[in-house]
Amino acid sequence: MHFTSEQRLDTSEQRLDDGVLEREFTLGEIPGILWTPGSAAAAAPAPLILLGHPNLGLRRMYPRLVARARHAAADGFATATIELPGSGDRPRWPAVEQARADLRRAMEAGEPVGDDIVDALVLPLVDKAVPEWQAALDALLSLPEIGGPVGYSGGVISIGIRLAVVEPRISAAVLFAGSLVPRAMFEEARQVTIPLHVLLQWDDEGNDRQAALNLFDALGSKEKSLHANLGGHTGVPQFAGDDAARFFTRHLR
Amino acid sequence: MHFTSEQRLDTSEQRLDDGVLEREFTLGEIPGILWTPGSAAAAAPAPLILLGHPNLGLRRMYPRLVARARHAAADGFATATIELPGSGDRPRWPAVEQARADLRRAMEAGEPVGDDIVDALVLPLVDKAVPEWQAALDALLSLPEIGGPVGYSGGVISIGIRLAVVEPRISAAVLFAGSLVPRAMFEEARQVTIPLHVLLQWDDEGNDRQAALNLFDALGSKEKSLHANLGGHTGVPQFAGDDAARFFTRHLR
Repeated sequence: MHFTSEQRLDTSEQRLDDGVLEREFTLGEIPGILWTPGSAAAAAPAPLILLGHPNLGLRRMYPRLVARARHAAADGFATATIELPGSGDRPRWPAVEQARADLRRAMEAGEPVGDDIVDALVLPLVDKAVPEWQAALDALLSLPEIGGPVGYSGGVISIGIRLAVVEPRISAAVLFAGSLVPRAMFEEARQVTIPLHVLLQWDDEGNDRQAALNLFDALGSKEKSLHANLGGHTGVPQFAGDDAARFFTRHLR
Repeated sequence: MHFTSEQRLDTSEQRLDDGVLEREFTLGEIPGILWTPGSAAAAAPAPLILLGHPNLGLRRMYPRLVARARHAAADGFATATIELPGSGDRPRWPAVEQARADLRRAMEAGEPVGDDIVDALVLPLVDKAVPEWQAALDALLSLPEIGGPVGYSGGVISIGIRLAVVEPRISAAVLFAGSLVPRAMFEEARQVTIPLHVLLQWDDEGNDRQAALNLFDALGSKEKSLHANLGGHTGVPQFAGDDAARFFTRHLR
């Protein structure tokens, strides 16, 4: 893990009493970003939240990621994210790009999205991304300013489910309900046991609501909450973000 | 409205810095209870939350009602409840008792509960109870220690929906999702416009989950959140109660 840049974010948000430290890094060929709370909170190692995101590239997702990072820092959390395979500045991945084109074509034609398209889009991504997030976790937890426990938040829900199953260092997760979930992931969902907080946008254009509810039902955790709010995919209300933040504070601090 | 008894609740709960005042009252023949925050918070008129409950009688519901009242008082709210028609010490109501017996028989036999049973059980209750809650609101808002705005919380969801539609003094409501909802109430649900926070127990023995989700979908409010948690009818987790309390604080204070 090599840090490639470093900056203090400004302190315009009233909740922050000092600047969050943002550091870009590379982990082999994978770019990533680490945010740690300002100096007042940095006396002890901070618990960590891994920030998942859809595979649209870190640069495009940066404004939303940094907002989540600042909110988490105000609660005393470090946050980190890495680029997904085939996204952003990473080498293109023709097979997944083909599946994405097939998906777009089916949706534009108003056709149902077949299981084969979903499998081709999501399963290789999960298989490749999850070990990368685990490698990032190894590197992050070796830093003196980062402690446990670890949470995972958002992004591609199938990645969150696989991580929750295979990575014992993750103690709690906030997931964003999605319907582009391979059938095989439902079986993995039953194996999840960590506390979960699932956000569902009731009017999400790109999601089949019933499929999202079925996936919530399949999750094996004894503590799981579904928070559904009106609005489209990116319209998660502020108060719903605050509830998710409190979930992490309850479980990770 | 006549007060018939008065007591200070003890201060064993750490959140309360002084005792909540509990007063029983009668409104005509209807018994009720009013809780107001302790003296430290009582300088200004308190916003009011009406505490709904299932029609099992106030005496039986008292432990859960007083817990909700104390939690609300710690947030600065007055709370009040009245006995439902046909429940507790009020005169028995043979038609509704008959419908309740029919419901019990159908559920024990594992039969689907017919629309006729649900209509006979719920519609007369809504028609009679809602004007009584409005009369209680008239009396409560005339007290100097009670101000606006007003919230409604819990109980029979059809009563909450009707109140939200017909009573403009109610600004926000927490509803408990239930499936014993007459078809006619779905039309009223579409007319609701106030902010709503809906609690659903995912494994509620007495509720049809899909029917509850359909009712949430039908509610007309632009701000509505569904908070679903694992567990049976009375198993609402503490953190879900805290989220509901924050919803009222956001909208009524």
